[in-house]
Amino acid sequence: MGKNKQKIDPLSMKPHEFRRLVREEVWTDITMEACQGYAQANMAILPKKYAYDFLLFCVRNPRPCPILAVTDAGDPFPKSLSTEADIRTDLPKYRIFENGEIIDEPNNIKNYWRDDLVTFFLGCSRSFLWALRSANITWKRYGAYKTTIECEPAGFFHGPLCVSVRSFKTSHEATRAIQISSRHLLMHGPPVYIGKPEDIGIYNLGQPDSFNPGRPIVEPPEENDIVMYWGCGITPQAVAIETKIPFMITHYPASMFVTDHLAEEFSNL
Amino acid sequence: MGKNKQKIDPLSMKPHEFRRLVREEVWTDITMEACQGYAQANMAILPKKYAYDFLLFCVRNPRPCPILAVTDAGDPFPKSLSTEADIRTDLPKYRIFENGEIIDEPNNIKNYWRDDLVTFFLGCSRSFLWALRSANITWKRYGAYKTTIECEPAGFFHGPLCVSVRSFKTSHEATRAIQISSRHLLMHGPPVYIGKPEDIGIYNLGQPDSFNPGRPIVEPPEENDIVMYWGCGITPQAVAIETKIPFMITHYPASMFVTDHLAEEFSNL
Repeated sequence: MGKNKQKIDPLSMKPHEFRRLVREEVWTDITMEACQGYAQANMAILPKKYAYDFLLFCVRNPRPCPILAVTDAGDPFPKSLSTEADIRTDLPKYRIFENGEIIDEPNNIKNYWRDDLVTFFLGCSRSFLWALRSANITWKRYGAYKTTIECEPAGFFHGPLCVSVRSFKTSHEATRAIQISSRHLLMHGPPVYIGKPEDIGIYNLGQPDSFNPGRPIVEPPEENDIVMYWGCGITPQAVAIETKIPFMITHYPASMFVTDHLAEEFSNL
Repeated sequence: MGKNKQKIDPLSMKPHEFRRLVREEVWTDITMEACQGYAQANMAILPKKYAYDFLLFCVRNPRPCPILAVTDAGDPFPKSLSTEADIRTDLPKYRIFENGEIIDEPNNIKNYWRDDLVTFFLGCSRSFLWALRSANITWKRYGAYKTTIECEPAGFFHGPLCVSVRSFKTSHEATRAIQISSRHLLMHGPPVYIGKPEDIGIYNLGQPDSFNPGRPIVEPPEENDIVMYWGCGITPQAVAIETKIPFMITHYPASMFVTDHLAEEFSNL
């Protein structure tokens, strides 16, 4: 929790204001309600040696891993997403993977930064949820889960597709959610699955997943709810674990990078 | 020209039938009217050494270079696009670049194939033109041109954005063309420019371009025509020339790879 969290209203902040609080580690909490309307990004940082295979993995798996930006090796400034942001300090919390294990979850990565690191920013469903909210759609969220669907492999990289799960009470709302998320292909686009969670290997819907902590435990959907599953930006973290990659940094779940661009700037319609 | 061209009706053929004629070098002409409704792809083949920079170049320039598929190094079989196609023989005509110069334009690349070559298939506007035609839209085409707009560079790769140019008589048709091409993001998506050709450095609209030969000379648009410019798959060829890359193979202009998939299978809406 941020030290002064009670005084902070992140929803109405501009991205540069919010990122300043993050940089100063005044805000170390999740970004789900930060900077309404602005695009947020998942992040994966890897040694240059792995960059081609990972880029191809993202290209082959655009639902979980839509590419917003890729920096040059060693460059901590994602200029296409923000004029003044610094990758090393501007996310509330990070995860450090070594040989596929989480060895640290720091609030900055200044001590882990290296000149051979390439940063991938991947679109985040938070971005299209602003649009759902603007359309007066309501939904219930269950957090993120590994599935039994395998991603399309690319070189070194392989692993399970992870999804974020939401349920809708009416077919109108479910249809609108498909339409609206289809306008945001760079933010995961339309659902990858509609149906029962056990069909794709999810048996604990509503329970926090071991590597996606901090989610509230919620009741499972009711019988007539329409349950839909979107590609999720924690997929690279599942891939890090699966491949035992020697070194990789990601955002901490739900602690994304807030860009200077409105989500609608990235929409395809 | 194909040896038996007068007897061949490529428009009504299935892709595997058409590709067989291409493979046997019975058909060596352009593919613009081949296999109605099926997706066609532009192609760029590069040594693995250049693959990361080129993949990133495509990711950063999705309008001219939308990625349909990338093969592993040395693999001549693009299985995600066809169960039985062979990259080395299944395009009517190729271009071989050495140090940025066209040194050969063969009908197969069996003699140029190497184990370190990675093949990139890029979406082609031919694919969304089937959809325009299905919607009873008419247009006039002027071929492809280099512009003064620079692509977003990536590592080794930089160069001018190339465009294919079409004019429309009515705002209804122009609007429908934007809507329909926006449904086909993997086939160049919506136009990159609307307006006068000289605004983006095109002074010879309707005249065949030196590296995009074989186009008919057509009259320039009339004053009230709406002229629109789409990202074009010959951009990698302009980039090959600009960067003087030691070795690269591409399709010959308008001689694309015909995939087994209908263009609509790739549409985003």
